[in-house]
Amino acid sequence: MGNADHTYEQLMTAVKEISLLGTSASVLHWDQETYMPPKGAETRGNQVSLLARLAHEQFTDKKIGTMLAEVAQSDLVRDRANDAAVNARELRRAYDRATKIPATLVADISKTAVMGHHAWIDARKESNFTKFKPWLAKMLDLRKQEANYVGYKTVIYDALLDEYEPHETTANLVRVFESLRDPLIELVAKIKSSPRRAPVEILERKYAAAAQEIFARDAAKAVGFDFDAGRLDVSVHPFCTDFSPLDVRMTTRYDEHYFGDAFFGVLHETGHALYGQGLPIEHVGTPLGEPVSLGIHESQSRLWENFVARSRSFWEFFFPKAQTVFGQQLKDVTLDQWYFAVNDVRPSLIRTESDEATYNLHILLRFEMEQAMLNGEISVDDVPRAWNDRMQKYFGLTPPDDAKGALQDTHWSGGAFGYFPTYTLGNLYAAQFFEQARKDLGNLDAMFARGEFAPLLTWLRENIHRHGKRYTARELVQRITGKELSAEPLLNHLRRKAVELYGV
Amino acid sequence: MGNADHTYEQLMTAVKEISLLGTSASVLHWDQETYMPPKGAETRGNQVSLLARLAHEQFTDKKIGTMLAEVAQSDLVRDRANDAAVNARELRRAYDRATKIPATLVADISKTAVMGHHAWIDARKESNFTKFKPWLAKMLDLRKQEANYVGYKTVIYDALLDEYEPHETTANLVRVFESLRDPLIELVAKIKSSPRRAPVEILERKYAAAAQEIFARDAAKAVGFDFDAGRLDVSVHPFCTDFSPLDVRMTTRYDEHYFGDAFFGVLHETGHALYGQGLPIEHVGTPLGEPVSLGIHESQSRLWENFVARSRSFWEFFFPKAQTVFGQQLKDVTLDQWYFAVNDVRPSLIRTESDEATYNLHILLRFEMEQAMLNGEISVDDVPRAWNDRMQKYFGLTPPDDAKGALQDTHWSGGAFGYFPTYTLGNLYAAQFFEQARKDLGNLDAMFARGEFAPLLTWLRENIHRHGKRYTARELVQRITGKELSAEPLLNHLRRKAVELYGV
Repeated sequence: MGNADHTYEQLMTAVKEISLLGTSASVLHWDQETYMPPKGAETRGNQVSLLARLAHEQFTDKKIGTMLAEVAQSDLVRDRANDAAVNARELRRAYDRATKIPATLVADISKTAVMGHHAWIDARKESNFTKFKPWLAKMLDLRKQEANYVGYKTVIYDALLDEYEPHETTANLVRVFESLRDPLIELVAKIKSSPRRAPVEILERKYAAAAQEIFARDAAKAVGFDFDAGRLDVSVHPFCTDFSPLDVRMTTRYDEHYFGDAFFGVLHETGHALYGQGLPIEHVGTPLGEPVSLGIHESQSRLWENFVARSRSFWEFFFPKAQTVFGQQLKDVTLDQWYFAVNDVRPSLIRTESDEATYNLHILLRFEMEQAMLNGEISVDDVPRAWNDRMQKYFGLTPPDDAKGALQDTHWSGGAFGYFPTYTLGNLYAAQFFEQARKDLGNLDAMFARGEFAPLLTWLRENIHRHGKRYTARELVQRITGKELSAEPLLNHLRRKAVELYGV
Repeated sequence: MGNADHTYEQLMTAVKEISLLGTSASVLHWDQETYMPPKGAETRGNQVSLLARLAHEQFTDKKIGTMLAEVAQSDLVRDRANDAAVNARELRRAYDRATKIPATLVADISKTAVMGHHAWIDARKESNFTKFKPWLAKMLDLRKQEANYVGYKTVIYDALLDEYEPHETTANLVRVFESLRDPLIELVAKIKSSPRRAPVEILERKYAAAAQEIFARDAAKAVGFDFDAGRLDVSVHPFCTDFSPLDVRMTTRYDEHYFGDAFFGVLHETGHALYGQGLPIEHVGTPLGEPVSLGIHESQSRLWENFVARSRSFWEFFFPKAQTVFGQQLKDVTLDQWYFAVNDVRPSLIRTESDEATYNLHILLRFEMEQAMLNGEISVDDVPRAWNDRMQKYFGLTPPDDAKGALQDTHWSGGAFGYFPTYTLGNLYAAQFFEQARKDLGNLDAMFARGEFAPLLTWLRENIHRHGKRYTARELVQRITGKELSAEPLLNHLRRKAVELYGV
C-alpha cells in the first residue's frame, strides 16, 4: 500500500470518527425532541454543544488539512469518479468552509441564534416586528461576515446558499425560479377563479390519533420504510434524522380534527427516511455515504408526499383501507371527493399550511426577500412592507399583521438565509425525477393502484440514494434526466391536476 | 485567585467535560435499551465505544495528573472537609486506578466480556457449564492481572471490590456477612417449617399492563419521583440511569400474570432514581455530585422497595387505591392477605426471583465463591459442585442443572467479581439507615399510612443524597447512625416480619 493509500485510510478513519460524534449528537437531539423530560434541557444543551465542539475541533485540525493535501496530489484522485476522488473533493469543500470561518464568529452566530430565537418567539406572539428587527439586522451582518470569510464568485448570497445546496449558484436558481414564477401565479389565479371547491371538510372530521397512527404506519411500511431500521415517534415539530442507514428516526404529530397533518407529514418524512435508509452502508461516515444536498433530500420527501401520496392511483389502493379504519368518518365519502380534498389548492398567508402549488410562491417570496436584504436593496425597516407587497402580488392577499406575515417563520432568527430555496428546489427536482421515473418504469399509476411501490423505490435507490455525494445535485439531474433543471415538469404536474380537479 | 485555585478550576472544567461525555454515552445506552430499532445495534456500539474511549483518553491525560498533584500540594486540601479536598481525593483514586491498568488489558477485558457473554448465553441455554468454563477461567486470569496492576493491601479481592464499593475491604465484608449468615440461615429454616403460607396466588391473577403502569406511576410520584425531571419506560432488563439530577430515567417490564414484578421493580428503581434526583446540582460532573458507591445506591433502592413498599403501613394507604384500579382482581382480598402475599419468604434456586430475606443468602454464596475462585481455593472445574454444596447448606436445595445453579447470573461472564456483595451491602445499609430514620422522625408508619413520604425523603436527601461523594460509605454509616455497619438492623427487621407473618 502506497503512502497516499495509507494517508487516505487514516483520513477515512478520522472522518468516520467525527461522523460518529455527529450522529451521537443526533441521538441526543432526537431524544430532546421526543422523550426528554422538561427539566433535562440544560444538561442536554451542554452535551450537544460539547459533542459539536469536539467534532469541529477534530475536523478543523491541521492534520486533516495535511492529509487532504497529500491525497489531492496523489494518483487516487486522477480519475474523478474514484471513490477517493469524490471523498477528497467533498471533504476539501467542507474543510475549507469550516477552517475559513473564525471560531469567534461561529460562536457569535450560535449565541445570536439562541437569543434571536427567543426574541422572535416574543415578537411573533405580540405581532411586533420592532422587537425582532435588531436581531434580524445583527444576524444579517454576521452572516455577511461569514460569506466574506468563505468567499464567493458573484453575489454574497452564493456563499450562504452553498452551505445548504453545495455547488449551486444564485444565478442558476434565479433562472429556474423566474421561469416558474409567472406561470405559477397565473395558474393559482385561475384555480382561485374556478367555481369548484375541494370538499376539505371531509378531512376536518374527528380522526382518533391512535387510528391515524396505525393507518400512517401501514402506509409508511407499504411504501418501503423498514421499521426494523427506524422508528416513528411524536414531536411538536415533525422531523427526520438518521444515525446510520440502519437507524432512521422520523416523527409526526396528530391533529384529531385534521387528517392531512399527520398523514401527509408521515409520508413526507418517510420520503426523507427512505433516502436515509437507502444511503450506501459501506460508505457510512464519509461523503459517499451522505445525502447530496438539502434540495435533493427535499425532493425525496416531496416526491413521496405529493407525487405519490396525493395521486389518484395511490388512493385507489389506500382509500378502501382508510374506509376500513375510519368507517364512521368516510362512509359517505367517494374516492373522487377524497382525492379532491387532499389536493385542495388555495392562496393562503401561512407557508406551512399551504398546498403543493402555492407553497412555491411562498418560497419565491422569501428567496427574493433574502437576496434583497443581503445586498442592501431593502433595509430591515422595510421588511414587513416588502413582504406584504409581494403577498399582494403573488397571492392577492394582505396579512392582517406581521405574525401572519414576515414574522411567521423561525428560519431567519437562526440566520438560515439560503435555506428556503431548497424547499422549492426539492419540488422541482422531484417533478423532474418523477417524470423520468414514469418514462423508465412505465405505468406507475397502475402499480400504485395495486399497492406496488417497490419499483419506484428501487429506481430511486439505484439512481439517487446509492450514490451518496458522488454527483452534485446538478450532475445528478443531468445524469438521470438528460436535461438541466427546469420548471416545466413541476408546472406540467400542477397544470394536469388543475385541469382534472378544477377544470382550469 | 492563587495558582492552585486556578488549577483547581481548570481541573473541574476538565472533569465536567469528561462527565458530559459519560452522560452522553448514557443517553445512547438508555435509547439502546428502550427505543432503538434492532438494526441500529452496530452503529450504536461504535458510538458508545468512541465516547468511552474519548472520556478515558481525556481522563488519563498526563495534564490531569499534573493538575491533581498541584492541587494536592496546595492549601485547598488542608481541611479534608473542603469541597476541593473531597474532589481531589476522589479524582486521585479514580485517576490512579485508570492510569495503572494498561490500555491493552482494558481492551482484552472488554473483548473477553463480549465473547464470554455470548458463550454464557449458549452455556446457560444448554445448561452446559463446560462451554462457559474457559471464558470464566480467562476472565479470572485477566481480572487478577488487573488487581495486580491496581495493587491491594491484603487480598486480591480487595482490588476488585474497590471498583464497585470504594474504600471498602474484603475483611470488613467478611466480618459483617459472617454475622449475618448463620442467624439468617436459621431464620429462613424456621420460616420454611412454619405451617403458614403466603397467599401468593393473589399476585398471579391477571393484571393488565396499562393498569399496572398507571398504578406504579402513581406510587412513584407519591413517594417523590419528579416526572418533570425523569421518565419511566419499558425495557427487557429494568434499570435506572441518570444524565443529571434533572434527568433521571428508569425502566420496568410488565408481567400481566405477576403483579409483583413491575410494581416492586418500579419502587426499587424509584429508590435509585430519588438518589439520582437528590444529588447536588451545583456539583454535577464532579465527585461531590456523584453517588458514594454501588452499595449506597442499592441501599436507596432496597429501602424504598422493601422497607417502605413492603410495609403494612404503605399498603394501608395504597391498598384501597389498588382495589380501585384492580377492582375485579382484588374484590375478595383483604389488606392482611395482600400484605402477607407481598412478603412471601421461601428458599429458592434463582437469586432474581428470591425474596427480601433469602436474597442475601444468594449473595453470601456468590461472595464466598468469588473469593475462593480468585485465591485458587476452588478451580473453575469445581465451580458447579462448590455452588451446589452451598445451595444445600444455605437453602436445603439442590439445583436440578447448572442453568438453575452456577450458570444463572450474567455477572461473571463480564468479569464483575466484587459486584454481588454490593447488593447485600445495600440491604444492610438500608436497614441501618431506616432504623435511624425511625428514631429521628418518629412514627414513620403513621406517616406512610397517611401517604406522607416527604419526611423520609427529606431525611435521605439531607443525610445521604446531598453529600455526593463527600463521605465514604463507612464514614456515612458512622456519621448517620453513630455505629459501624452491623447485621443486626437487617436481622431485626426480618425477624419482626417473620414473627408477624409466619409466627416464628
